Amino acid sequence: MFREKLSELQKKRFSSKPLPSGPAPYTSSNHFKTRTSDFKPTARSWEHRFSRDALKQNASVLKAAAIVKAPDDTITLGTGRPAAEFYPWRSMAMRGVDESWRQRGGAEISCTTGENGYDLAVALNYGFAAGSPQLLRFVTEHVEMIRDPPYGDWECCLTCGTTSAIDLILQILCNRGDWILAEEYTYPGTIDATKSQGLKMLGVKMDAQGLIPDDLDLKLRAWDIASGKKPAVLYMIPTGHNPTGTTQSAERRKAIYRIAESHDLLIIEDDPYSFLQLETDASEPQADSSAQALVDRYMSQLPVSYLSLDASGRVIRLDSTSKVIAPGLRCGWMTACSQIVAKFLARTEVSTVSPSGVSQVMLYKLLDETWGHEGFLGWLRNLSAQYRQRRDILVEACVRYLPTSICSWVIPAEGMFLWVRVDLSKCAMMSPGYGRQEGPLPSSSIEDQILSQAKANGVLVNKGSLFRVDHIYPAEICFRLTFAAAPQGDLDRAVSRFGDAVSSVLELDSVSSLYSAVHEDPCIAASGATKNGCSARLSQKSGSKSCVS
Amino acid sequence: MFREKLSELQKKRFSSKPLPSGPAPYTSSNHFKTRTSDFKPTARSWEHRFSRDALKQNASVLKAAAIVKAPDDTITLGTGRPAAEFYPWRSMAMRGVDESWRQRGGAEISCTTGENGYDLAVALNYGFAAGSPQLLRFVTEHVEMIRDPPYGDWECCLTCGTTSAIDLILQILCNRGDWILAEEYTYPGTIDATKSQGLKMLGVKMDAQGLIPDDLDLKLRAWDIASGKKPAVLYMIPTGHNPTGTTQSAERRKAIYRIAESHDLLIIEDDPYSFLQLETDASEPQADSSAQALVDRYMSQLPVSYLSLDASGRVIRLDSTSKVIAPGLRCGWMTACSQIVAKFLARTEVSTVSPSGVSQVMLYKLLDETWGHEGFLGWLRNLSAQYRQRRDILVEACVRYLPTSICSWVIPAEGMFLWVRVDLSKCAMMSPGYGRQEGPLPSSSIEDQILSQAKANGVLVNKGSLFRVDHIYPAEICFRLTFAAAPQGDLDRAVSRFGDAVSSVLELDSVSSLYSAVHEDPCIAASGATKNGCSARLSQKSGSKSCVS
Repeated sequence: MFREKLSELQKKRFSSKPLPSGPAPYTSSNHFKTRTSDFKPTARSWEHRFSRDALKQNASVLKAAAIVKAPDDTITLGTGRPAAEFYPWRSMAMRGVDESWRQRGGAEISCTTGENGYDLAVALNYGFAAGSPQLLRFVTEHVEMIRDPPYGDWECCLTCGTTSAIDLILQILCNRGDWILAEEYTYPGTIDATKSQGLKMLGVKMDAQGLIPDDLDLKLRAWDIASGKKPAVLYMIPTGHNPTGTTQSAERRKAIYRIAESHDLLIIEDDPYSFLQLETDASEPQADSSAQALVDRYMSQLPVSYLSLDASGRVIRLDSTSKVIAPGLRCGWMTACSQIVAKFLARTEVSTVSPSGVSQVMLYKLLDETWGHEGFLGWLRNLSAQYRQRRDILVEACVRYLPTSICSWVIPAEGMFLWVRVDLSKCAMMSPGYGRQEGPLPSSSIEDQILSQAKANGVLVNKGSLFRVDHIYPAEICFRLTFAAAPQGDLDRAVSRFGDAVSSVLELDSVSSLYSAVHEDPCIAASGATKNGCSARLSQKSGSKSCVS
Repeated sequence: MFREKLSELQKKRFSSKPLPSGPAPYTSSNHFKTRTSDFKPTARSWEHRFSRDALKQNASVLKAAAIVKAPDDTITLGTGRPAAEFYPWRSMAMRGVDESWRQRGGAEISCTTGENGYDLAVALNYGFAAGSPQLLRFVTEHVEMIRDPPYGDWECCLTCGTTSAIDLILQILCNRGDWILAEEYTYPGTIDATKSQGLKMLGVKMDAQGLIPDDLDLKLRAWDIASGKKPAVLYMIPTGHNPTGTTQSAERRKAIYRIAESHDLLIIEDDPYSFLQLETDASEPQADSSAQALVDRYMSQLPVSYLSLDASGRVIRLDSTSKVIAPGLRCGWMTACSQIVAKFLARTEVSTVSPSGVSQVMLYKLLDETWGHEGFLGWLRNLSAQYRQRRDILVEACVRYLPTSICSWVIPAEGMFLWVRVDLSKCAMMSPGYGRQEGPLPSSSIEDQILSQAKANGVLVNKGSLFRVDHIYPAEICFRLTFAAAPQGDLDRAVSRFGDAVSSVLELDSVSSLYSAVHEDPCIAASGATKNGCSARLSQKSGSKSCVS
């Protein structure tokens, strides 16, 4: 499967004209698609979904003037771009340590002024908003190979990271005062971004498979126009959701897409975690363990992107390098229909202009010249295996140290987050007679106390209320734990400290006297406290299994 | 002068605590200022100038949670930042070619994972919005040394380039529908940025010294509230103006600042060109030619920044690396009062997040570890000398090849642009009886014809109407020529091609029969066509000298 696609790409590259050279060359993913789009439908028109300002926004005239085609001996007195001789660097080089690096590229990969691969002087000059042809080619090929959108006029472009892309997309699609929809818990950066543009966000209920289609449909059907225009944008993190760690099943995605069709919603698919697959067991013996078979298996297990379901061009898919390569690059990519990409590029030209040229060099030299498509997928597969180990350690530690009479979690099948729910209804502090005159504590105060106590014990966690779209505190409090950041050897100790904080703040002696003792808990008994027992249980394929007392 | 300042900085560094480590460390330019601000006034309050959205915008809660101070053995299960081991690079290295590079840093400057100077794993991780402590320290020292703002609570922060910074600043200061003021010709990126936010721009008249204070005052005094709220923001490029190449004198700046005070304007000072001084003659013999004396002389000739006149904290100064280091880095810095910097950082956190970490590494390793402050100023001085040579070649070529009966220009004292005005009133094509029935051609059509003919002749120039704030075409047309981009040896030929285009489109035979022949032109006679004669004339200090027939 992968081999055939790769061979198509290679043929296309071989038969294509050389990449354009010179500063900020015009480029488009249309130059790099292998398949003619003639037999596919085109996206519908999205004119009615653009903001007032976006409707008027077109590509910069000065930049359009700079990409004029001219004969070779043309001299420019036009665009104010300093000549290559005025840049202080002549070359840069990078070293990595992983196996593919050693195998493919030798010990050091360099980029020099005047070279054919990616002229450093071009990287150091102004760049075109969609990205350099070198990197955009790789990204387009990657997207076509993995996602294969079912309509013809899709395009990719680079972004200055997903946070920046979301900020610009909301400007293109929304007018001040508009509502957008999101999962009831979501990435706080997006909550803040909507606020900073005077937009309002409405949360849609979630279960162990993420956003609930029926609630989405209900909220849209029952929309009261008195509270504003009916929402036209749905923002989601469908895979390894931040913060809850949930992943939508393929059926769930189809149901949500159908609702988007019936209410004419545009979908922003923020998907930085989908390459971190935690259910593929790297240590399991394989019938065919060739590199190709492993990559095929990895690809077949990737959750389906909304882009691959999208016949109308209503999906704006955002990929990030932050969770799978390095966040400091501030570089990702977007895939959407050409109308939306054009507006995005016009807006980019007067804001971020383009991602850093040195970030693009780092990525191109790594992805294209060192790894290639197969090496990149191999890297993602290895990364997944490492994250899987870390997740297992964290979950085992939760079973061992958290008071499972009141704590529960869904084991994440993707991503880097574990979402721990603490059921306060069983907790003495919530009872009417708690303490003296003051009565029960509000849940937000208990959340803060646990957070402080955890910090005092030497562990930092994120409190769930940070991620709530609507600031209503339910009777349970939640904490987001990530296994991505700390040294692997510290994870067990960290959870032990967190467990102590939960137990001591919630005065667990009284809790455990009210309910079954921790060691009689059925979940613990089922999973066993030993490493092997727990691993065996974790390796069962499931994104919805939960350990609830 | 420079030495004493440098020694103050060194003392401050020596007595300071080590820079904070770990991912995205909190930092502030307040940590790096050498002088206590106690004896200086503080900025006035700018609360009344923030946009509706900015008033509500505060620092991101998630990011605030991530910069919590905690004991050393604290383990984080909090922020979702991948551990260093998950980044594919272990080191990067750069090579340059200039003298300071060879003298100070040897042939290669590297950055490795775990190093003390700037840990590559930190650069590859998420970054703090204001920048890394390493680079922010250098920038703060540089600004204090060169600009020394007369109020106490100023701060610096990095930007993702000036275009991005302007986009965010306008969001902080303006509500949709607001007017902002600018020079009547200005950078089209800023015109487009205002449009893309639904803002309106009003042009203020200019002369050979840039924006005319009386016209600014008049426009504000005569403001008709029926057309909208009175403008509160003045955007300017006061030095080596884009596109006209003009530089405001110190007196002009003071007059404009006084008007800003009386009408309570905030000033956005977009100043990427001020380090490109074209009037310092590097080849002139110096009484004291020590490196120190040369740097002192260079610094003393820098135009005064509005920041250095600013007692109220009303100036937002934008510095760019694009014209003096490399635009592909997408990194610059902003200096303003702390209230404005705080809002800018809060907005940055939900948009660009931070400049690329690898761009920051490149800059830090170059500016701080390789060059130091003295080396950086030496680089700027050398760059100025090279641009001066190029400007001289371009101006000599204009004298030689442009029809000076109708073409005029002001020789730029700073920057990289020459602004050529073509007086159409003397041109046959503008006469009522021109051609057959159609009568005179509109100026925009003549402008387009010259542009096309120039392109056909093999030279690209920018047409002046691209830069006009108000789209009214005066009876003269203008072209912006830059001497920064083409190979130096091509400049003469390029102007010759442009001159041919002007002459042929304007049917110069008829023009020259109406007016004095080109070789009798008094400007040509005064300047002489020889290199020496022209150089001698150009080296007189003047930003307002013009060669008008």
